[in-house]
Amino acid sequence: MTHNDAKIINTLRILSAEQVQAANSGHPGMPMGAAPQAFALWDRVMTYNPANPQWANRDRYVLSSGHASAMLYSLLHLYGFDLTLDDLRHFRQVGSKTPGHPEYGHTVGVETTTGPLGQGIANAVGFALAESYLAAKFNRPGFPVVDHYTYAMCGDGCMMEGIAAEAASLAGTLKLGKLIVLYDSNRITIEGATDLAFREDVGKRFEAYGWQVLRVSDGNDPDEITAALEQAKQDERPSLLIVPTTIGYGCPAKEGKASAHGEPLGAENLAAAKRRLDMPEGAFVVLPEVYAHTAQVAARGAKAEAAWKDLFARYAQAYPELAGEWDVWFDDKLPFDPIADETLWKFEGGAATRNSSGEVLNRLAQRVPNLIGGSADLAPSNKSVMKGRGDFSAEDRTGANLHFGIREHAMSAIVNGMALHGGLRPYCATFFVFSDYMKNAMRLSAMMRLPIIYILTHDSIGVGEDGPTHQPVEQLAGLRAVPGLLVYRPADGRETAAAWAVAMTDGRPTCIVATRQDLPLYAHSGKAALRGGYVLSDSKGAPEVLLLASGSEVEPMMKAQEMLWERGVDARVVSMPCMELFEEQSEAYKESVLPGAVRARVAMEAGVKQPWYRYVGLDGAVIGMDTFGVSGKYKDLFPMFGFTAEHAVEEALRVLGR
Amino acid sequence: MTHNDAKIINTLRILSAEQVQAANSGHPGMPMGAAPQAFALWDRVMTYNPANPQWANRDRYVLSSGHASAMLYSLLHLYGFDLTLDDLRHFRQVGSKTPGHPEYGHTVGVETTTGPLGQGIANAVGFALAESYLAAKFNRPGFPVVDHYTYAMCGDGCMMEGIAAEAASLAGTLKLGKLIVLYDSNRITIEGATDLAFREDVGKRFEAYGWQVLRVSDGNDPDEITAALEQAKQDERPSLLIVPTTIGYGCPAKEGKASAHGEPLGAENLAAAKRRLDMPEGAFVVLPEVYAHTAQVAARGAKAEAAWKDLFARYAQAYPELAGEWDVWFDDKLPFDPIADETLWKFEGGAATRNSSGEVLNRLAQRVPNLIGGSADLAPSNKSVMKGRGDFSAEDRTGANLHFGIREHAMSAIVNGMALHGGLRPYCATFFVFSDYMKNAMRLSAMMRLPIIYILTHDSIGVGEDGPTHQPVEQLAGLRAVPGLLVYRPADGRETAAAWAVAMTDGRPTCIVATRQDLPLYAHSGKAALRGGYVLSDSKGAPEVLLLASGSEVEPMMKAQEMLWERGVDARVVSMPCMELFEEQSEAYKESVLPGAVRARVAMEAGVKQPWYRYVGLDGAVIGMDTFGVSGKYKDLFPMFGFTAEHAVEEALRVLGR
Repeated sequence: MTHNDAKIINTLRILSAEQVQAANSGHPGMPMGAAPQAFALWDRVMTYNPANPQWANRDRYVLSSGHASAMLYSLLHLYGFDLTLDDLRHFRQVGSKTPGHPEYGHTVGVETTTGPLGQGIANAVGFALAESYLAAKFNRPGFPVVDHYTYAMCGDGCMMEGIAAEAASLAGTLKLGKLIVLYDSNRITIEGATDLAFREDVGKRFEAYGWQVLRVSDGNDPDEITAALEQAKQDERPSLLIVPTTIGYGCPAKEGKASAHGEPLGAENLAAAKRRLDMPEGAFVVLPEVYAHTAQVAARGAKAEAAWKDLFARYAQAYPELAGEWDVWFDDKLPFDPIADETLWKFEGGAATRNSSGEVLNRLAQRVPNLIGGSADLAPSNKSVMKGRGDFSAEDRTGANLHFGIREHAMSAIVNGMALHGGLRPYCATFFVFSDYMKNAMRLSAMMRLPIIYILTHDSIGVGEDGPTHQPVEQLAGLRAVPGLLVYRPADGRETAAAWAVAMTDGRPTCIVATRQDLPLYAHSGKAALRGGYVLSDSKGAPEVLLLASGSEVEPMMKAQEMLWERGVDARVVSMPCMELFEEQSEAYKESVLPGAVRARVAMEAGVKQPWYRYVGLDGAVIGMDTFGVSGKYKDLFPMFGFTAEHAVEEALRVLGR
Repeated sequence: MTHNDAKIINTLRILSAEQVQAANSGHPGMPMGAAPQAFALWDRVMTYNPANPQWANRDRYVLSSGHASAMLYSLLHLYGFDLTLDDLRHFRQVGSKTPGHPEYGHTVGVETTTGPLGQGIANAVGFALAESYLAAKFNRPGFPVVDHYTYAMCGDGCMMEGIAAEAASLAGTLKLGKLIVLYDSNRITIEGATDLAFREDVGKRFEAYGWQVLRVSDGNDPDEITAALEQAKQDERPSLLIVPTTIGYGCPAKEGKASAHGEPLGAENLAAAKRRLDMPEGAFVVLPEVYAHTAQVAARGAKAEAAWKDLFARYAQAYPELAGEWDVWFDDKLPFDPIADETLWKFEGGAATRNSSGEVLNRLAQRVPNLIGGSADLAPSNKSVMKGRGDFSAEDRTGANLHFGIREHAMSAIVNGMALHGGLRPYCATFFVFSDYMKNAMRLSAMMRLPIIYILTHDSIGVGEDGPTHQPVEQLAGLRAVPGLLVYRPADGRETAAAWAVAMTDGRPTCIVATRQDLPLYAHSGKAALRGGYVLSDSKGAPEVLLLASGSEVEPMMKAQEMLWERGVDARVVSMPCMELFEEQSEAYKESVLPGAVRARVAMEAGVKQPWYRYVGLDGAVIGMDTFGVSGKYKDLFPMFGFTAEHAVEEALRVLGR
């Protein structure tokens, strides 16, 4: 470590603490402890070009401990990304580029949104998986056009989270050797020493997962850390570096204490830290020799990208077809229009929508070469296998069918990482009820606006015999509540095609919620379903009552319409597979489907009622679940819980006052 | 293994497969593979009395692989619990005692509801933790009145789930030596061999957690398994038995295959299995010698309970005070009435509701001796510490403050297990947004109707600088959608007392959703809040407009009421801290609070709008979040997202058409 190296490390420490101090909010502890490893990585090991943060073959850096955001912002600033000292001064303020936790799409150079612990490690597994798959697809002898590492940094918190355990176990199974995790082990969490709750041998655990584990002896020695990183890069297994550090290092009053974690050091302590670290007194000061050095690192990165561009140009000459495919794969736009493609929409007769979904998936797989995904061990039930596309494994990197194991939470975060990597269109699948397990990762799909496709089968009490633990009743309400997440519950095959067409083109994460049991095929379903809600079967004249439903409950509503007609009531059936899309239609369209003047409205959905009051108001009725389901044949359950045409008729007559 | 032992084991296998065959639905594979270890446990090792399944000091058995329910029902029937062959014949049918997955409170002898993988192991950690704490509290030399084991059985699926990893790591840290997990390792999951997704060394991983790991060589040898169980009981660490088995053992066409897992064997295969296992041909046949033997086991259990009762009688003489405390601790009813106790309701001036919650918790801790709980490493922020009640650790079993580590999902399932054990009133705490991580376990709290208290602080954009990853916006809607879960979001100190009073008396799990930021104390808040919704500030005459809000948004609504009065509009403010309780009030009460004739209604909540349409209908307005939040000072965020009195006034005038 040179004198200047130490200056840079201490600049990272103090710049981070300054941000927190200026905001009077944030986490100085980890940045001060982890600065040496961050320096080793960003200064010596990682390959990236700050002038082009989108370079496809850059190394990826994931700060899984998102609360150490100030450190990431300090790194981005020092190493030449478009983030100024002024941005750092506005840390954690409305409108700044430096929010409390790193946000993808908001701050240049931030590869993923982190903060909820464990998510970042699982994202990193997704990055590494994507790299490995794309390398197998595109690389040719002498042309390693996909050849980069994924580095994640995490603390004790991430290490305790189950999602990180799931992801690490899968990474070991899949031998994702280009994944390198730095574990900043400061043995301090908010409640105190980690001994309170966390005495396991983390290194041994990761060895059990099949990782290479490297134990650094001095977390303040960037030379030792650099050597360990270089060793990690050589191994075919993923690597964990255990780096012992001191939280709040350099702040005499706080180092090694929980109080260094999540609050400003205080002006006096900050001044003392500057003295201790031999740093200039002023606020947000970066010495010229620091910038001079980091500019050289940036230049090295620019050169690396130039060399890669040159490599790619020669590759395009040697393998023009592959280079052409590359352009298709790395384009966010699909190579064809699934809405216009009639083969996608062709169905004959009824079927479980999970089967229809499997059909559409396989039709799409013929046209979308970079579709990749799998299930959390329920592929045969989820109908999520792409036939003839192989299985991805440690031995075969070319398979597009992934096996996530029974690890829903990590699965969701891993596909987030794959989508963030670029080049792929990932999907994942499980039973709808187990969306519970991956809720926070799904939330991050939505927050980052990643086009993840969630295949969620076995919706509602239609699950039948597996009983209440497996019957989702509140999940539709719960996921519809997530901003920016599309929840699509199709009623038949063509609506399932619409769900997939939306999922492939909208850009937002989309849940395709499908039945286990058979459903009919409706005469007039179709592309109108792309609008989220539409008139599936109209009244003969002006509607007296509106019957709204989604998915499997469209069937009883269609029957109720007939029965009401026989009783002299003219009803309209509105299929509402996706409330989010319907809400985005014009007011005129919405009024045309649900005329404001018609107050007699009945909605039916085999889930809790909450989402439907919006459409039926104080005068209408919702037929839904008030309790959990029960175990039994699904054909016994629907009538038992009131999901029948007769019940809909009764409620319609009631709201009509007849 | 005697000839008769083999008969019992094969009876377990065939009875289980028969149930699945009769239902034409279910999972025969694990029961057939795991029958020998189940036999060893239930026949030779476990202490229980089928005549009194509630005996406090019984050993607990948790079938974490809930899909193997048929095996549990076979065990319960054979070993003398009140479950008949006829019950087994109605496996998975509506109204039967034998639902698809084991359900606590529904079937005698079922200690917890399982099915969602990993939950059971974490429940078991809760059982063992409860046992350990209660033993430290009540046992005296010569009087081990709390002295039992917790056995869990799980398969590869549970082993892959993050929640199980979290729970196991904590169990190792806490040295819960009376926890013994049998890992039925058949290396088959639904998608095929576990090698596809799961190549880790599970034994080494558990050693890393600090467990004793015992490797059984033959999963079909009950003698070897018995010996390993006895060894496990001697160790002060929790123990994992790795038991290699063959899925579907005994069914020639299916054993060792994924197809044995989750579908009936088929009549022919079932007949072939009977021949292979030398079992009688008929359906649901149990040989008299099997019953003769299991009756002896039941008699042994009855004798064990009688001996314990005798021990307890002598204990009650030697330690009458402790025996008195025992009665209090094991009574579901509180030793005092928190609604009548005025000390609980006393507040002076405003405060963050998290602080008020911490206040009430500590007041309750003085009166409720068996209150126990903690946080997922956020205790100082959640205000969830009971002062002077010590910390629970491997070294000190008497502390009532638990440190769960950063393991939200396991935390929730562990407190479920503690509540199921009996004798304790557990609570847990984390940031509200991280309720996402524990959603499925919270769902199970509700399904089992366990009186868990969830302290969920840092609600809404009031979180401020930590930004969107830490700001819950959809969690209120999501949790309100869970049947049987009370979601209480108090507006001030007294409403916080109401939340706690409900949590302590209602019997259902209760979320106390609290602010980080300060709130006022309202003149007229109080016990009316026990009804879930009430008139906090009435209009002077008949209300022209209703202003509804919860928590921090009550404050702008109170201000809006004044501003509307100045504009000649007479408004009523309804505080709605708990929609679930409000819905359970009489129609007359609800009408008195929200008169049906008043259609001009405005609701405000710093969360998504979905839950509020029920109260405002098609003519009213909801002021809520349509997007995620942003990082910044909370005082900047509330106006930015429209949560102001001015906005409420504007909307009120709009819905009034003025």
